[in-house]
Amino acid sequence: MAHKPSIPKGTRDFLPQDVMRRNFVIHRIRTEFERFGFLPIQTPAMEKTEVLLGKYGDEGDRLIFKILNSGEKIRKANSDALSEGDLSSFSNSISEKALRYDLTVPFARFVVQNQNELLFPFKRYQIQSVWRADRPQFGRFQEFTQCDADVVGSDSIIQEIEFVHLFDAAFDQLQIKGATIRINHRGILSGIANLIGASDKLIPFTVALDKLDKIGIKGVKQEMSTKGIADKAINLLLPIMEMKGDFIQKLDQLEQVLVQQESSRKALADLRQIVSNCQALKSLSLEFDVTLARGLDYYTGAIFEVAAPKEVAIGSVGAGGRYDNLTASFGMKDMSGIGISFGLDRICLLMEKLKLFPSSLDASLDILVLNFGNDIVLDLLPYIDQLRASNLRVMIYPDHVKLKKQLTYADQLGVPNVLIYGTEEKELNSIIVKNMDTHTQKKIFLTQLITFFEI
Amino acid sequence: MAHKPSIPKGTRDFLPQDVMRRNFVIHRIRTEFERFGFLPIQTPAMEKTEVLLGKYGDEGDRLIFKILNSGEKIRKANSDALSEGDLSSFSNSISEKALRYDLTVPFARFVVQNQNELLFPFKRYQIQSVWRADRPQFGRFQEFTQCDADVVGSDSIIQEIEFVHLFDAAFDQLQIKGATIRINHRGILSGIANLIGASDKLIPFTVALDKLDKIGIKGVKQEMSTKGIADKAINLLLPIMEMKGDFIQKLDQLEQVLVQQESSRKALADLRQIVSNCQALKSLSLEFDVTLARGLDYYTGAIFEVAAPKEVAIGSVGAGGRYDNLTASFGMKDMSGIGISFGLDRICLLMEKLKLFPSSLDASLDILVLNFGNDIVLDLLPYIDQLRASNLRVMIYPDHVKLKKQLTYADQLGVPNVLIYGTEEKELNSIIVKNMDTHTQKKIFLTQLITFFEI
Repeated sequence: MAHKPSIPKGTRDFLPQDVMRRNFVIHRIRTEFERFGFLPIQTPAMEKTEVLLGKYGDEGDRLIFKILNSGEKIRKANSDALSEGDLSSFSNSISEKALRYDLTVPFARFVVQNQNELLFPFKRYQIQSVWRADRPQFGRFQEFTQCDADVVGSDSIIQEIEFVHLFDAAFDQLQIKGATIRINHRGILSGIANLIGASDKLIPFTVALDKLDKIGIKGVKQEMSTKGIADKAINLLLPIMEMKGDFIQKLDQLEQVLVQQESSRKALADLRQIVSNCQALKSLSLEFDVTLARGLDYYTGAIFEVAAPKEVAIGSVGAGGRYDNLTASFGMKDMSGIGISFGLDRICLLMEKLKLFPSSLDASLDILVLNFGNDIVLDLLPYIDQLRASNLRVMIYPDHVKLKKQLTYADQLGVPNVLIYGTEEKELNSIIVKNMDTHTQKKIFLTQLITFFEI
Repeated sequence: MAHKPSIPKGTRDFLPQDVMRRNFVIHRIRTEFERFGFLPIQTPAMEKTEVLLGKYGDEGDRLIFKILNSGEKIRKANSDALSEGDLSSFSNSISEKALRYDLTVPFARFVVQNQNELLFPFKRYQIQSVWRADRPQFGRFQEFTQCDADVVGSDSIIQEIEFVHLFDAAFDQLQIKGATIRINHRGILSGIANLIGASDKLIPFTVALDKLDKIGIKGVKQEMSTKGIADKAINLLLPIMEMKGDFIQKLDQLEQVLVQQESSRKALADLRQIVSNCQALKSLSLEFDVTLARGLDYYTGAIFEVAAPKEVAIGSVGAGGRYDNLTASFGMKDMSGIGISFGLDRICLLMEKLKLFPSSLDASLDILVLNFGNDIVLDLLPYIDQLRASNLRVMIYPDHVKLKKQLTYADQLGVPNVLIYGTEEKELNSIIVKNMDTHTQKKIFLTQLITFFEI
């Protein structure tokens, strides 16, 4: 391979600074998950294809990465299907496994498979990569990390309330101010669909509504129209979409409009309970958004979306909702669940733009030991072991090269302290500690080295 | 899907206790990596197939998981190759990406691709999953985690010495006693191969020798014989393999045997420097093992293997070595490197057998708040937020079910504290804290709750 190697489009290498920043965000989110009583689980990157297919709609199915069967197994390729253009049968003949597309379906599979070892209600969190064969674009990758928390085995409204508090606590910990948590409920949406006479088209109705941000009200009308929703019905929608007022005022208006809609009654009561228990949020503002629809088919109750602060045009940084039937497709019924997800990549982008990463993350090393000959520097090994045991990050410059080159290295690495120990210092049992920020240096006895850094 | 769902063979679900234990080990290893001055990087799970193929030998190539091209691209499947039985061409016609097989080759690719953004010598660590289409068996999985540290851009012996200290510090932190770090050098092996007249068969010689543990001396002789190494040569090997004495005594004997072998001279000097700078190890014993060969083709200098304590038959729990040409296959020459890897799965297995996991890892929750009605328990929300902000892990039991059921849940979860707040407590602005270990309980004012847990 003569040309410079590269990685597949839509994937990324993470340099040390990237990883440290991502780990910083993950650590904060994970801490909040644990404080809210969630337990960690992990599932394999590869799932059986049958577990994933049919759960994300047709478009989702197409975006699932499939793994080619190994070795001799691909002899069984169905060439007839290929020549007939039946790509799905062809790929199924040479592939049985696929990369996970999200963490929710694998979680549902996990719950059913491991049900005898779990205690319900079961609260789990999971922070792992997912893969989607999506067309890459700014902020959209083929491999990215999801941070999910879910509860299954309870339909209590306490969970919805707790998730709002969890979002709030996490964004507070990350010092992100000005984000908005938008809330709606599928029961409201189905009430509206029913009201305007489109209840048989609930899914296309929701899918179209969900695109309001992207395609505007005209686009939504057009899409609904092509999906067979009558113009008259769409016109009934407009005043609802344009309601004004705060959370409770909007609920009041909706209550009058939806007074006849059975399916909206519980939804309205739920939303009132949520808002009355989320008055004192630290970092988020709470908003009722009747146009929030969330595309995914499996939501059945409250739905959430966290919008980034307005000054950063980056879309949603978190989302979630209640689903009642997710485990049913694996044969386990009556297992209501609710979950949320933090968008790690966008949160990192957001924090970068708002300069919220602490500068301490840029310092990856505390001490660089200069090298004036291997035999000399190796004298220091017992001291270096001790410094490291005191939790200092120490690197020995491995080669005896010119002092200037070593100091340039220290500078570029941004290390705050440099140790100088040459023949002269060796003779006197001393060592020089140079502070790279203040450009001052201090000569001390070797025996003082550990206590010097303890101060 | 009516039957219970399952995961692909060779993969695993990790339950909360598993994840907490794995994270404990990862955290300790990562801390040592950072104390030794290594910086974290991450690479994509998917690499271009051309990056991986040809780096792990024929057997390795067969064990790489390939990703099927998405959508219409698989129309280009080479059916002719399939009918001719040319499986490799067939799979290449429908696949361009593959899952990484280890972290070393992706690291070499990373170094070449990102060379302008890196500072050399570059010390990196990487903790990520790898995938191998290996036949699953006890302790061998198709998806597992590697914890690697490598330095590139220096051929200094200081690195070899530092890696021995790093292994030692990490096992000390994990409180694993009685492990042995075995060391050898490819320069010794090529000297021996030359001595016995098998220098043209160095690779099969090394591969056969590497299997000594598994197939015994008879097996090794047989394999060498089938690879065309003369019986006479093999007989010359035996006294070398059976050398007695400590590290330095063995080196002395070898030095006499290999006195004529140019390639062994530096190897012997390197090994002497390593042993003289690794006399005061905390947890590991150091052993020179002339039969240690490490199968991988790319090693060129010192090689390491950490054997688990003898009382646990689990094989090696860490390994590594120096390689001089790893980046050369990506067009970047003269970039000597050395790296080691911790076997996370086996270390976890080992620690489980030796009961080294702290019992604190089993407590995943500090407080369970019992539910005597949503309206009542939601009064506590501001207090619960405060407890969580004090870093306590608190769960609200979400449903108002029988007290006994809730207490059983608390018991099974192993939570040490339970909060009881019913109508009576509400009236008195009080709350009961029940200690589940001592079965004692204390009634306090609600306003005392936060300070109660601060003590």
